[in-house]
This record gives sequence, structure tokens and C-alpha cells, in this order.
Amino acid sequence: MPRYRVVLVEPREGGNVGAVARIMANLGYEDLVLVDPGSLAGAYRRAMHGRFVLKRAETAPDLRTAIADADLVVGTTAIPSSKEEAFHRHALTPWDMAAGMQQVGGTVALLFGREDFGLYNRELDRVDVLVHIPSRPEYPVLNLSHAAGIVLYELYKAEERPTLDPPRAASGPEKERLHQTFREFLAATRYPAHRRRRTAVLFRRLLGRAAPSKWEFHALMGVFRGATKAISRTSGSPGPGPSS
Amino acid sequence: MPRYRVVLVEPREGGNVGAVARIMANLGYEDLVLVDPGSLAGAYRRAMHGRFVLKRAETAPDLRTAIADADLVVGTTAIPSSKEEAFHRHALTPWDMAAGMQQVGGTVALLFGREDFGLYNRELDRVDVLVHIPSRPEYPVLNLSHAAGIVLYELYKAEERPTLDPPRAASGPEKERLHQTFREFLAATRYPAHRRRRTAVLFRRLLGRAAPSKWEFHALMGVFRGATKAISRTSGSPGPGPSS
Repeated sequence: MPRYRVVLVEPREGGNVGAVARIMANLGYEDLVLVDPGSLAGAYRRAMHGRFVLKRAETAPDLRTAIADADLVVGTTAIPSSKEEAFHRHALTPWDMAAGMQQVGGTVALLFGREDFGLYNRELDRVDVLVHIPSRPEYPVLNLSHAAGIVLYELYKAEERPTLDPPRAASGPEKERLHQTFREFLAATRYPAHRRRRTAVLFRRLLGRAAPSKWEFHALMGVFRGATKAISRTSGSPGPGPSS
Repeated sequence: MPRYRVVLVEPREGGNVGAVARIMANLGYEDLVLVDPGSLAGAYRRAMHGRFVLKRAETAPDLRTAIADADLVVGTTAIPSSKEEAFHRHALTPWDMAAGMQQVGGTVALLFGREDFGLYNRELDRVDVLVHIPSRPEYPVLNLSHAAGIVLYELYKAEERPTLDPPRAASGPEKERLHQTFREFLAATRYPAHRRRRTAVLFRRLLGRAAPSKWEFHALMGVFRGATKAISRTSGSPGPGPSS
């Protein structure tokens, strides 16, 4: 796994720098380098709990300095091209780039260009891996912090961190007990006999898609057993039939 | 493919609203509803070419109005839980949610909560599909526009895959009728009153994941109505109480 360094090239809006620091903190990335930045007014306010990223950010006088010790340079462009002769604008998707990074070590610099002009061609020439975030061709230019956020989000996803433990799934035998309980419930409610089989299958498919947890299994068992009991408690005195 | 509506619940920072409008324009989503918003100062400046999204945005006095005609409600939380008993905070990843949406039609409301407090529990109760954006547990709260950006980005990515024609999905009003019918059924079965709300939410989430078709909707309505009727037919003569 490489170490990632976010490099903002001549950012002009302090608010954007702060928003980048915040999403970096959200995703656990901490190395930020600002190349010849403009005013940082508003940066701290927007950074929220990401202030520590701003505080330890370094400033570089030019791009060359910022990436001097990088092992790989990734750059972003809003204007990719698939024309063969425009090879320096051939771009990967963020997720393909992120998958590729899992093979890489050392320091990877992630370049994000100016709010208005992005990265200049001579800067793109220095980029090892070019990335384009999919977007509508009519308006492909994302806000700087959104572009950084999406690239970092894909890197974070690709790192295979365990996500939330899913709740324990109901086991096969548990689900079968639930299906049996549901069939008994249908019978108790005098559900038309010729429809019971199909409705039981429908219920099975529905639960198959919903993938119930053990907790949900117990709750549903309680619901259907309770209903069957409520009916049988009064059985022996079945209602006279049709009501409104 | 559903039609997506971005619903911001009580956003307090105009800049965030503008940034959401911009990323919506980047990705081709245009329906924005603001629930009881604060000042929109700064929104137009931050929206850039997404100004048209802001211009056509609607304002709603409360969440209920904003989602009245939605067929499915997706909500986001920064604080998921995998504890079984906290099922109303069990969340999907944005990409699993996006994959599921490919089976859905109609209007899907995507809720994003307040900058400071997110969505309240009673609002989460109304959510059919809950989403958590993976992030560091130490600081999971993303900027509002970043959360919206990442969710929309995953939806945009997922749309590019053609799929089989799905069966017609149950509409929002149909599902609400089903939820109402289920609550009446719980009451009829003398399901413990203090557990009814939680069990109704559990049923809502289960169906949110299962994405029922119209056919399934009608079958389930028949099942629960039939059961309620079977019980009330014999009511007036409630059982004497405890049985084995």
C-alpha cells in the first residue's frame, strides 16, 4: 500500500482547501501539500475536524518541488480524450486507478489542479497515471474538493478495510422454521388453500432478497406466531362469515 | 431506472446547497428539494454552472411534504450500527444501494440531513434504505455536499450498466398502504404495544431491501388483511388469555 500525498496546485479558494482537509480527515489521509496557494481565508472554518491536516500541510513554491520525492504521480483531468493522438489525455476511471494502486508502494502524489484551469499540459506531461471522474460532458468540471473527495473515496474503498460487520444472518434452519410458521399462519387465517403454495413461495423469494438477520428472524417469528395464536385462541368459535 | 430527487433537510449553509447543486449538474441530476432551508446566501456563487438546479429547486415546509409522492426513500447516516437490536441503523454501502436501485422505478428521494445533527431518529424511521458512506470511525461526518456527491457518483456509475427489465415495482403509496395494513394487523393480533413501532420499522427496512413488485404488494396485502379479518371476525370473544 503506498502512502498518499494530496497536492493542490495553486488553489485560489481557502474554502476549497479546507474542504479537502476535511474529507482527507474523514478518510484517514493526512499528507497535504499546497503549491503556491492563494489566501487561505475560510480554510480553517471549512476544515472542521480536519484542521489538523491543514496545520501540518506543507507549502511548496512549485509543482516540481512538491513531487520531487514521489514514486508515482497521479493527476486528474475534467477533459479526457480517447483520440489516439491526444495520448496525454487518455484517462483511467477513479476505480481502475485505485485498483492499480494496490500494487504500488512508496509515495504516490495525487495532483489536483486549479479551480479554473485545472492542470496545464506541461504539468499533465509529468503525470504517470491520469484519472477522469465520470461526469456529464456538458458540465464535467467538478468542484476541487469534490474531485479530491471522490478520488480519495475510491482509494479508501480499494484498501479493503473491513467495513461494518453485517448483522448475523438468519441461518438456513431458522429460515425454514420461519417459512413453516408462515404456512401455519396462512392456514390459521383461512387463506384460500389453492393460493397458499404460491404465496409461501412469494414470501420465500421476498426474504431471499431481503436477507434477514437473526434479529429480524426472531421478530417475524414473534409476529406470525402471535397472529396464529390470536386466531386459534378464539377458534372453535369461527365467525359466521362475511363482514363488510 | 428511477427518477432521483435530492432532498436536503434543513440545510443551514447556503454554500453547501450551492455545492450540492453543482455536483448534481456535473452528474446530470436536476431535482432538488429544500426542506425548511436556512439562508441561501452564497448558494448561487458556489453552484457555478449548476445554478439552473438551484433555480428550479423547490422548497417544502417539512420532510413529509417533500417525500409525499416518493416511491422509495433513501437516507444517509454517519453513525451506522451493526448491533442487531439497532436495526434501524443497519446501513448499506453506497455501491450496494446503487446496485439495488437499478431494480427500482418511480421516484426515489435521497435524503441528506442537517449539517450538524443529520437526520433525527423519527426521520430515519421513514427511510426505506439506509446508507452509510465508509469513513474513519474517529471522524465519520462528511460535509453535506460531499456526502451527496459520493452517493450521486455511485448512482451515476451504476446507471451505465444495462440490466434485465425488472418487474413493475410497488409504488410509494402502495407500500404505505401495506405498512398501514401491517400496523393494523399487529394491533389486531395484540402484538405488544411497546414493540409495534420498532417492528413496523423493521418490516419497512426488510421491504426496503427486498424492493417488492406490484404482484408481491397485492399478495402481502391479501395476507395481512385476511389475517386481520380472520381475527376480527371472532373478536368480541377474545380468548381468555394465556395458553401454552
